[in-house]
Amino acid sequence: MNEPRTGTVLFSLPIRIYYEDTDAAGVVYYANYFKFFERCRTEWMRSLGHDRLSDQEGLVFVVRAASAEYLQPGRLDDEIVITLEIGRLGRSSLTFRQRALRDGEALANGSVEAVCVDISTMKSTPIPGWLRQALENAPPETRAGEGAAPI
Amino acid sequence: MNEPRTGTVLFSLPIRIYYEDTDAAGVVYYANYFKFFERCRTEWMRSLGHDRLSDQEGLVFVVRAASAEYLQPGRLDDEIVITLEIGRLGRSSLTFRQRALRDGEALANGSVEAVCVDISTMKSTPIPGWLRQALENAPPETRAGEGAAPI
Amino acid sequence: MNEPRTGTVLFSLPIRIYYEDTDAAGVVYYANYFKFFERCRTEWMRSLGHDRLSDQEGLVFVVRAASAEYLQPGRLDDEIVITLEIGRLGRSSLTFRQRALRDGEALANGSVEAVCVDISTMKSTPIPGWLRQALENAPPETRAGEGAAPI
Amino acid sequence: MNEPRTGTVLFSLPIRIYYEDTDAAGVVYYANYFKFFERCRTEWMRSLGHDRLSDQEGLVFVVRAASAEYLQPGRLDDEIVITLEIGRLGRSSLTFRQRALRDGEALANGSVEAVCVDISTMKSTPIPGWLRQALENAPPETRAGEGAAPI
Repeated sequence: MNEPRTGTVLFSLPIRIYYEDTDAAGVVYYANYFKFFERCRTEWMRSLGHDRLSDQEGLVFVVRAASAEYLQPGRLDDEIVITLEIGRLGRSSLTFRQRALRDGEALANGSVEAVCVDISTMKSTPIPGWLRQALENAPPETRAGEGAAPI
Repeated sequence: MNEPRTGTVLFSLPIRIYYEDTDAAGVVYYANYFKFFERCRTEWMRSLGHDRLSDQEGLVFVVRAASAEYLQPGRLDDEIVITLEIGRLGRSSLTFRQRALRDGEALANGSVEAVCVDISTMKSTPIPGWLRQALENAPPETRAGEGAAPI
Repeated sequence: MNEPRTGTVLFSLPIRIYYEDTDAAGVVYYANYFKFFERCRTEWMRSLGHDRLSDQEGLVFVVRAASAEYLQPGRLDDEIVITLEIGRLGRSSLTFRQRALRDGEALANGSVEAVCVDISTMKSTPIPGWLRQALENAPPETRAGEGAAPI
Repeated sequence: MNEPRTGTVLFSLPIRIYYEDTDAAGVVYYANYFKFFERCRTEWMRSLGHDRLSDQEGLVFVVRAASAEYLQPGRLDDEIVITLEIGRLGRSSLTFRQRALRDGEALANGSVEAVCVDISTMKSTPIPGWLRQALENAPPETRAGEGAAPI
């Protein structure tokens, strides 16, 4: 039986830093890394059948907790890469380990816990089997799928 | 019979500039003035019975066009005031003249055209009589109501 | 000798939720709580002599880590209150405990660690004595000062 | 002698709509189209030698005016394309015509007037000759260069 592939980079998304992402200190505004992390999770979900999750099964992942450590400032025009690993796969929740890298150096490390929720009741519900299987079988560094925006 | 009070400041909302509003050029990011303009329109609508509009009558104002001229840069920690005038009052649309002022000097002038839309059909519909009357009778410089955030 | 007032609400800032703060799920976008937390820290700093810190002493607080737990969704038009406590006062760093409350109920709890940095070297430096004293002597629930935006 | 290529799509940038771009009305927040337009201008400038402009010549383009018409709502997960044409090429200013398209249908049309400014004086200055030439000789639909983020 397969184990979920924790600790392996499953997906990465290149992102360019624009003026909208920066602030008057000349660096990426701290809250915006959470936007970048979410873009990466979204593209990864899309590559795994995201539409099936929300449209056919009436499920959605809701963020229950999020954190980031800021190591180096990101700057205007930087090309960074956001990565995603599965930190913990629970019955109805999933913890992502995410990083923002510039030339391989971490600008920020993050962690995001998401819970699978039934849209009709807004109550947590088990992660469906097909998604759990996809997580267990996902090859590391899944290609940046049709929905991704590689630089 | 009353005319709509065009060309008179009907509402003003003080706003503080935070890091989130600025960019790496050290000034307020150009798109963010449209956020400020919308906050002012929202508080003005609230002071006129906004809840009645959306909740009881199933109507909403949708932005059809927006523009801004940028005259002076806004900066971190600035206290600015956003103002609202009625530029044109049509049967189902309303054009707002808005300004961002710092110590009385204009940083930006804007214009926003909004259309009254029936939420159920998403088609334009006449502005309801009570709102039209409120516009005609609104005293200039309506107090920043309960919902406003005066500095 | 005074202890820093940890565990006491030192400052609170009322905030109104606008369209810009929400997303297509109909709730406040998760990253935006970090904007709200920062607005509250900024106004608290202003009430304690923020200008002195950055302009006269060449110091600035830089966020080293941030986290949030999401308990209840915030919604459009909500009036929420952001609070600030000192969680830990180190030699050169300061951890804030922050909350977003609606009618006294927590929507989100957060923690933000900031480091005092010398702008000329961008290296961490001890928190200046006058600020440390202000922290130790600050009465709980400091008024929302001139810079704050009470609803 | 060449004319500037007005009225021709010079550059296009694909963009994916994420939660961060939408609001509680379920559509792209109106101010965010200006972010998308700026991303497209930035990538186009990069493809023309943007670094030379700011780093070697001490020049920057500053937005003097911006407008948009909203025709159809953009929605979560939409793949849209932002386009750029030169509307007017003045001595020191440049007007861009920009569009947000989904499957070839316009969601929004915009216009952005930018002025070439000397960073040291913040006064307007003529657009440098090499950039003017590049504008005159640019083939339509310049490839989305290294800096662009094609879907």
